[in-house]
Formats: sequence, structure tokens, C-alpha cells
Amino acid sequence: MSEQNSTTAYATLKSRFARLSALGGAQAVLHWDRATMMPEGGAGARAEQQATLSLIAHETLTAPETADLLASAGDSADALADWDRANLNEMGRIHRHATATPTDLVSKLSYQKSKTEMIWRKARAANDFASLAPELTTLVALVREQAAAKAEAFGLTPYDALLDGYDPDRRSADIDRLFTDLEGFLPDLLKRVMDKQASAPQPLPLTGPFSIPLQEELGRDVMGALGFDFAHGRLDVSHHPFTGGVPDDSRITTRYDESDFMESLMAVIHETGHSLYERGLPAEWRNQPVGRSRGMTIHESQSLLFEMQAGRSTQFISALAPRLKKIFGGEGEAWSPENILRHYRQVGPSLIRVSADEITYPLHVILRYRLERAMIAGDLVPADLPGAWGEGMNTLLGITPPDDADGCMQDIHWPSGSFGYFPTYTLGALAAAQLFSSAWKARNNLGIELGKARFVELTSWVREHVHGVGSSRTPDEIILAATGAPLGTAAFKSHLEARYLAS
Amino acid sequence: MSEQNSTTAYATLKSRFARLSALGGAQAVLHWDRATMMPEGGAGARAEQQATLSLIAHETLTAPETADLLASAGDSADALADWDRANLNEMGRIHRHATATPTDLVSKLSYQKSKTEMIWRKARAANDFASLAPELTTLVALVREQAAAKAEAFGLTPYDALLDGYDPDRRSADIDRLFTDLEGFLPDLLKRVMDKQASAPQPLPLTGPFSIPLQEELGRDVMGALGFDFAHGRLDVSHHPFTGGVPDDSRITTRYDESDFMESLMAVIHETGHSLYERGLPAEWRNQPVGRSRGMTIHESQSLLFEMQAGRSTQFISALAPRLKKIFGGEGEAWSPENILRHYRQVGPSLIRVSADEITYPLHVILRYRLERAMIAGDLVPADLPGAWGEGMNTLLGITPPDDADGCMQDIHWPSGSFGYFPTYTLGALAAAQLFSSAWKARNNLGIELGKARFVELTSWVREHVHGVGSSRTPDEIILAATGAPLGTAAFKSHLEARYLAS
Repeated sequence: MSEQNSTTAYATLKSRFARLSALGGAQAVLHWDRATMMPEGGAGARAEQQATLSLIAHETLTAPETADLLASAGDSADALADWDRANLNEMGRIHRHATATPTDLVSKLSYQKSKTEMIWRKARAANDFASLAPELTTLVALVREQAAAKAEAFGLTPYDALLDGYDPDRRSADIDRLFTDLEGFLPDLLKRVMDKQASAPQPLPLTGPFSIPLQEELGRDVMGALGFDFAHGRLDVSHHPFTGGVPDDSRITTRYDESDFMESLMAVIHETGHSLYERGLPAEWRNQPVGRSRGMTIHESQSLLFEMQAGRSTQFISALAPRLKKIFGGEGEAWSPENILRHYRQVGPSLIRVSADEITYPLHVILRYRLERAMIAGDLVPADLPGAWGEGMNTLLGITPPDDADGCMQDIHWPSGSFGYFPTYTLGALAAAQLFSSAWKARNNLGIELGKARFVELTSWVREHVHGVGSSRTPDEIILAATGAPLGTAAFKSHLEARYLAS
Repeated sequence: MSEQNSTTAYATLKSRFARLSALGGAQAVLHWDRATMMPEGGAGARAEQQATLSLIAHETLTAPETADLLASAGDSADALADWDRANLNEMGRIHRHATATPTDLVSKLSYQKSKTEMIWRKARAANDFASLAPELTTLVALVREQAAAKAEAFGLTPYDALLDGYDPDRRSADIDRLFTDLEGFLPDLLKRVMDKQASAPQPLPLTGPFSIPLQEELGRDVMGALGFDFAHGRLDVSHHPFTGGVPDDSRITTRYDESDFMESLMAVIHETGHSLYERGLPAEWRNQPVGRSRGMTIHESQSLLFEMQAGRSTQFISALAPRLKKIFGGEGEAWSPENILRHYRQVGPSLIRVSADEITYPLHVILRYRLERAMIAGDLVPADLPGAWGEGMNTLLGITPPDDADGCMQDIHWPSGSFGYFPTYTLGALAAAQLFSSAWKARNNLGIELGKARFVELTSWVREHVHGVGSSRTPDEIILAATGAPLGTAAFKSHLEARYLAS
């Protein structure tokens, strides 16, 4: 293959991936609209639209010409500039993931995921695991088939092959090491923090109702302070908060509860973190694979950097408290920064992952990680989940779920076919602590700025070290380059000790 | 070709057109979102998404296999059931329109339309026709090329070939006949009505402000009364009211003015008419060409049936007036049905088509129809539009536009490349009057029902005779079957005389 043909092949690939990017953007709008705007009766037509766009994207990606173009472009990859070479690598990675699963399995999976998710919604509401079990069994069998096919194609273990789809180049050996470390540390820390908490003053109640328009106004204010650009995005309401859209049109959502503004506000900060990452991706690579976000661990590190690290810092809460007091017309000691902090820093074992505090959250994730690995390995059948779940909750958190609805059926991930996703929540929390610690050292006045509710220092640091890197490096390379160390537990552990035991 | 192969070909076509339908539905969501939700900064990414979906749809439609399949299926069209045969006909019609224009001309047109529309927005705001003229000249040249290509392919005149894209099987010979008739009738009617109006009491002012949330509540109430199903649709706000989405998820919009609720309310009724049509299309043909709406004349007949015929009827306004009085806390004679009617029935020559009354509106359309025919024929160059416009306004309406912004630059149609669209507004008004008159005769208690703000009688009649027919017949066949007469001016003329001269 001549160099000129290789160059042409790469140019053709770029336009093909630009088309895929536009299709992905259209899919993002359909997804956002479905969660925020669509009337119930539109579900059937929307499912057709989404399935059609997915199918067209899959056909475009897996067309025989794409493989030929990749082979041809690869012949002279060395002649490409760095970003282009990284872009070509990413094209190859995306293509490998798309082609590793046989087409008929793709269809079967897609059907069984929709079906299981639908049945899960009812089964969870009715606390009826028995009705979910057979569907989940079928789904896990298909996911294991897919994992085996990808394992074969990539030369990885089946679980690692799935993991790679969420967090490129991540291996379960890394996770085992990190999670074992956390498991040895967190339960003891939790005990010490709870002892300290028991002897400290209880948070004074913040009594609502907190009007939803005011909560929304507050959310927008805080988003603005974080650097969210409303000319390139929106804030809306959905059942579960999420970040959607595209980098130039980023749609975040939250949900409101008139009796509590605190959870919604932190959801807004969390999603703004995701959104700032998307918005900060390299603009000149907008429609190319190398310009995309770098997997779920890095994505979650950005949301948690803003929510857990900066958003719940003493400095920022000190700046936030007077604003809260004013907007809600609050009075007295309950609205002091100290009391707000107490609310945001209550810890303790609980049943539900999504509302867990940052000390116990990783234990929820460790449980799920081990159970899903066992399911993919064939060592645990879905029908045995309730027992294994109860045992794990007892060992890790010392509590026993009263039922399956708030036990092994609480998350949508498995019923929707996502295996290998859970660990990225905690890997993201580790990365967030490590990145924040480095940013803190690199930018002298970061703390002072946060104390004025100003995020420019923090944002400019992560733009440079994380956002602007796009997918030109692996997640671990990004962390190593940004912090000088591989992803580890040290910063996270120091962060928890400093926040919950010092002072 | 064997019959079995033909059947397979038709089945393959059905699945191909189902894909096109899903793509069209996705495009409808992108379009709606752009007009109602999208932040300004999302425009670039959205344009890419929309262009990509259009290109994929065009590629799917014009792929050589589609032509082969159509030929093959056509070989045994006689063996198909009626609806399937009509569906195959529609596939052929859509395919002919898509393939008649050479691909490079499609691209050039798409580019020049976007460019001209963008320049028009500025030129209109600055009343600067000189800056628009060269772009419009280029665009008209390209549209004439397209018209010539379609004329050649269809065996029609160039203008008729364009017209066919908006109103299938409509020919300018029909329009000439109808419009000449109207031109001989309306100016004299206008004079008589204005004389009568001058000696009648002037409408008492309805003084605002009318709060937007209340206007919205009113709009939703009225939509509900008309039969709009909020489980299958939404009401939102956009710069220009429109109906978007898909039949099972119909999105209508209006705009609000705190000093006047009357225009917004009628826009809601107008768009609900469009929406009810989409929603009433044959459900079993949802994703096939024969299940689509039957062109712009029939579409406009449905919006005007609800807005002009039923919505401004004495019966409905009598039911509406007490509701208006209550929701806005109005007092006195100004809120009587008689006074509300007076507001909704003021007539007189005016500059702007979109705010014209139903007597003068057709004269605005006749002007545009003649000018655009002359442009397509090459008898009028765009640079000469201002002079021709002024002359036409003087002849038809007896007024002289003070400038081009409110003259020949007031409409988006020509700058966005729509030639052959304008006549459908007035053809729709004629059809609306004719259909309403037939419904009135067929359903004894239609007037009584309207007087109770109940539309079930009217809606069930148009569902049966228009909505449920989909595209299984031509527009004129629909009108003939529904009313017993071909599309004419008689019902419209009687309607105007009865409404504006009787009593």
C-alpha cells in the first residue's frame, strides 16, 4: 500500500467517523428528549428511531470497507502526526469492539436488554425477584457469550474484555489490588468516623419546603460559578440526573424534592462536572474518536472532582452557605457553613448505593464488582443473587437488606446488560482525589478561590491535564501525566482522613 | 419477474421505507428541539446532525437497489391489496422526486438555501434588499435548474413539477382557475364588508397584560377541548408557531404576547388542527408512505378547519368568551361573545400576510403565486422583485409597502428555496370551507356541539373523511369523496358572505 493511499484511507476514515459522530449527536438528542420532554405515548416511535440510528451506526462501523481502510491507513501510521495517530488507534479500538460481537448476538442482546430492563422496573416495584430471575439468567448468558467473543478477539479474560468497553485498558488485576486495599481500610475508617460523629453535635434540621423555582435558580447560579456556559447547554429535570447532549450543547438534568434541596444541588454540581469535561474536550477534534471523553473512570473523576472534592470542601461550603440562607430565607445557626457541612458529611452504612456517603460508597461498588465478575465467570448464577447479595452486604457494610427491591434489584445496570461498569464509580473517586490533590499543589490559590465560589483555577488545571487530552492517551496515562503517579488509593485515603477525622 | 419475487421486493421496500420513516421521525425531533430548546451555541453541531440524517435518508432512497425493487414490485402491483398498491405508488412518487434532481444539484441547493436564508435574516432586519438580491438570484437559478430536471422527469411544466412536491397532482391550471375566480370576487367583497364594518360598533379594547402562564393554561384547555391528547404530544414556545414531531408524539408551538392573547390562542387552535390530522393518520400504516399526510393543501385545510371555520364560529366563540373572561378576570361588555367576535372579524388591507384576515389573505397569496411563477419561468428576475411587489400590492390590495422589509422580504419561503408552496395556503382555505360545509350538513348537531366547545362531531367526521385516508388518494380525490364536489371556491365564498355580510 503506497503512502498516498494510506493517507487517503485515513482521510476517508475521518469523514466516516465524522458521520458516526453526527449520528451519535442525534442519538444524544433523542435520548435527552426521551428522558426530559417526551410524552409517554411517544415511547414506541422513539424506540424505533433510536434502534434505527443505532443500526445505521453499527452498519457504518462494521462495513467491510471500514476494516480495509483501517488496514490501509495503519500501513503508514508512523507518518501521521501524534493526534492523528492516536485518532487512528481509537478508530481501531472502536471498530474492534463493534466487530468482536457477531451481528446476530448484537440483535439478541439488544432485544434481551430492553426486555429485562422493562421487567426489572415492574419487578423492583413489586419486590419480586422471582419474575426477574429468568430474564436476567437469559441476559447474563448472552453477555457471557459476548464476553467470550470479545475475550477471544482481544486476548483478554472475558470480564476484562467487557471492562475495556467502559474503561479502556483497565484490567481487573488493577482493580483487585485497589479494591483489596480499600476493603482493608474503609471499614475501620468508617468505625472511627462514626465514633467521632456520635460525640459531635448532630446537624440542625433545615426545614422546607424549598420551592422548586428557587432550587432551580440556585442550581443555575452554582452552575454559572462552576463555569457552565448556558449558550452551550441547559438544565432540566429527569427521573435520574444525567449529562447528555454533545460538547457544544450540553444538557444536564437534576430532580427536585421540596423537602430537601441538598441532594438536588449536589446532583447539579456532579453533572456540571461531567458537562465541563465534555465541553473541555479538544475542540479541533470534536467529531473524531480522539476528541471524545476517555471512558467512564475519567468521566466519573470529573464529576466527583467537582461534587465530592471541591463541592463539599470547607472552602466552597463556606461561600455557599450565605447564598443558601439568602435564597431560601433561612434563619439561625442551621444555615451556618458548619451546619451545612455537617449535613453533607454524615456517614454510615446504608442500603442504597446512589445515596451512600463517600466512605461507604466504595464498599457498595466492591460488592457489585465481585458479584458481576462471578456471574461472568459462571461461578454465580443470577438466581442465587439475593443470597450472595445479603452475605456481601453483611460482610462489607454490616447490614442485611430487608428485601430484594432495596437489595440486589436496586440498580438498573445488570438488567440493562451493563457488566464491567460498576468499578468505574470507585476508580473515578480515587482518580478525583488524586487529581484534586495535584491541582491543589499546582495552584497555590485554589483553596482561596473556592472560598469565593470561584472555580477558574480548578477548571483551568483540569482542562489542561484532563479535558484537553481527549482520548489521545489511556486513562492511566492521563492520571500518571497529570499527577506524577499511577492511579492509587493514597490520595483518596488521605482525603477521607483529612475531611472526616481531622479537626 | 415471478410474483413471489415481486412480493419479496415489496416487503423489502416496506422495511426500507420504515427505516426512512424512523429517520424522518428522528429529524423531526432534531428540528423541534432546535426551534424550542436548543441553546444558541448548539447550532453548528445540530446543523451537522441534521445534514447527516438528510444525507443518509437521501442515500437510502436513491440507492440503485431501491429503483430495482420498485421495478420488481411494480410488475405485480395488481396482486396487491388496495392500501398496499397505494403504498407502492407513494413509494414511487417519493423516489421519483428524490432521484429527479442530480446529486450535485442537491448539494448546491442545500448550501445555497442555508446561505440565502441566513443573509435574508440580516437583510430583512436591515431593510436591505440589495444584499439579498445576488444570493436570491443564485438560488432562483438553482431552483430553476431543479424545476427543469423534475419537469423533464415527470413530463410537467417546471413550476408544476415544483408544485407537485408540496401538493401531489396539483397543476397550475387548477390554481389559475380558482385564483382568477377569487380575484374577481374578493376585492368587491372586501369593499362591502369594510363599508358594513365602518358603520358597525368598533370592538371595545381588551386591555392586558395577559399573563403568559394564564395564556398557556387557556391554550392547554382549548387543546384539550379540541381533542389533543397530551399523552401523545406537547405545547411549547417558539419564534414562529409550528407543528412538529411524529403522529404518536405531536409537538405544537405558539408564541405569547402579554398585551394580546388572541393571536396566540388562534395559533394554538391552528396548530392543533395540523396535529389532529397527523394523529388521525391511519395507525396501521404509521411508518409507510401511504400513512403520511397528503401534502400541504390538505394539511392547511385541517388547521384552517379548526382555526377559521370552527374556531372563529359564532358558536364556539360564544362558548369561549365566558372562559376568557374568567381566566383573565375580565369585566364588562368588552368580554362579551359579540365583542370577542368583532375582534376576530376585523378585516382590511394590510402589509403582512401572516397577520392578514381571511378575506385579504388570498390576495397576498395570489401576488406571491404570480411572482414565483414568473421567476421560475424566467420572466421576472429576483432583482426586480421590489417593483413587481409594489405594483401587485397596489393592484390586489390597494396599498403600497413603505419598504422591502415589510414588502417582498417579509416571508422566509423564497430565501429558503420554497417555490410552489404559497398557493397551498389558499387552496387549504378553500378546502377547509368546503369540508366544513359538508361536515355541517352531515352532522346535525355540529353547531350545537361547537356552542358547548365540543369538537367530537367535527373531529370524527374529518377523521373518517380526511385523516384516516392518509395518502391512499390524491388531494383532489379526498376532497371529492368527502364533499361530493371537486375543490372549488363556492363554499369559501358562501362562508365569507355568511360570516361577514349576513346579520
